[in-house]
Amino acid sequence: MNRSELIHQIRTKQNFLCIGLDPDLEKIPTHLLDYEDPIFEFCKQIIESTSDIAVAYKPNLAFFECMGTKGWQSLEKIMKLIPNHCFTIADAKRGDIGNTSKMYAKCFFEYFDFDAITVAPYMGRDSIEPFLSYDNKWVIVLGLTSNSGSMDFEMLDTSHGKLYEQVISKASQWGNQDNMMFVVGATQPDFFTSIRDIVPDHFLLVPGVGAQGGSLEDVCNTCVNVDFGVLVNNGRNVLYASSDTDFASAARTAALDNIKAMRELVQF
Amino acid sequence: MNRSELIHQIRTKQNFLCIGLDPDLEKIPTHLLDYEDPIFEFCKQIIESTSDIAVAYKPNLAFFECMGTKGWQSLEKIMKLIPNHCFTIADAKRGDIGNTSKMYAKCFFEYFDFDAITVAPYMGRDSIEPFLSYDNKWVIVLGLTSNSGSMDFEMLDTSHGKLYEQVISKASQWGNQDNMMFVVGATQPDFFTSIRDIVPDHFLLVPGVGAQGGSLEDVCNTCVNVDFGVLVNNGRNVLYASSDTDFASAARTAALDNIKAMRELVQF
Repeated sequence: MNRSELIHQIRTKQNFLCIGLDPDLEKIPTHLLDYEDPIFEFCKQIIESTSDIAVAYKPNLAFFECMGTKGWQSLEKIMKLIPNHCFTIADAKRGDIGNTSKMYAKCFFEYFDFDAITVAPYMGRDSIEPFLSYDNKWVIVLGLTSNSGSMDFEMLDTSHGKLYEQVISKASQWGNQDNMMFVVGATQPDFFTSIRDIVPDHFLLVPGVGAQGGSLEDVCNTCVNVDFGVLVNNGRNVLYASSDTDFASAARTAALDNIKAMRELVQF
Repeated sequence: MNRSELIHQIRTKQNFLCIGLDPDLEKIPTHLLDYEDPIFEFCKQIIESTSDIAVAYKPNLAFFECMGTKGWQSLEKIMKLIPNHCFTIADAKRGDIGNTSKMYAKCFFEYFDFDAITVAPYMGRDSIEPFLSYDNKWVIVLGLTSNSGSMDFEMLDTSHGKLYEQVISKASQWGNQDNMMFVVGATQPDFFTSIRDIVPDHFLLVPGVGAQGGSLEDVCNTCVNVDFGVLVNNGRNVLYASSDTDFASAARTAALDNIKAMRELVQF
């Protein structure tokens, strides 16, 4: 999906909600455990119940990989279920030397046909570039993450500003606003302005609203731009809105609550 | 495998060779393409031909993932083939917020039963700690990598030395020499001394000898410590020593050449 199609989806659906798919066997409704593939059944029902309203889905690879080959099979089936009008993000945090990143790009852009993948920037340019050689595909580079560990290195003062500023500034020169986004945690509102100064036009993928404590209002006030420019992820609040047989309709209600809050803050 | 067993293996086999398993369909001998699972057959013959002499194997996840679910099945079978006296490293470069890293740890330490996994440090402490809660398992944190992109961020001057120095220094406090190693590229000899000053006792996983241009002599002169303290990876030179039906015996010969060079430089 290219940038203008993404903006079109946001305008049409009147929200920028990304639903994070982190299916956890210990958290999904227990009646699903009787299915042959509980993780798939859980995600299937969530997607069927929300795909007309959600702009994006973000499967978190770790929650599939922890189930081994079976988990990858579940993910394969899930990717075939998500309609084309939804933007798909492989939350995979990959990144390696050039010839290896090329293989990861092949996996996520060709085999699974994701629209985007999250990538860790530590290894620099040649670890990111292979993902940029695909048309209408996106690399989402970790900028300033939502977790407590973001204080350890991302916030370090360097000879070129804080590390996350240098990462966003430098990486933005390797791609452009049509094939690169940045992860910016909703829990970091004090730094939104400085990030928007560096990349006024890029899309930001914003996790951390909800369970992690970030405020949607802060994101809408400071990160939204003329093309909307954000995808706000909500995982647990939507996925686990109910632990009973009504979980899929409860997820839809929770998603609609999120969307309502967005519409109160942003004109679509 | 714990530290003393690893040292015992190095002493017994009289080398610290790690064979990187990067099976590439475009590079493996063409006669293998007739097999039902060419990647598995290739790795199987390489392992059978070298496991009595190699200390470690390092499957590179990207080369399996690019084949999708089938690739994961190949890796599963390969892991069952590698004898227990060989140390196994998942070269996966994972790392995410705590609850997600926990799932990656479950995947690589429980499902696949790897001894170690490579992890990217960008997201800080809570992205690394879940890997440290397993007995006799190792996290191998990216320190100073072998690729050209290492100049982009790893080499940045920060308020606490260069970024890679700060990563190694800080991360080494989260684990210890019994459950943490660092990736240090053989192509970075100018920085070996400063790294050994920070972590004199930790094991280093050293890629970049051979195809990438690093020198085994530099590694042996500066990085080896009283417990050996290094695993030197060699991938392409061993794997692709021959593109013919004799590839497995050619791989053994190439591995033995590597080992001979080590024995000339280090007393085992």
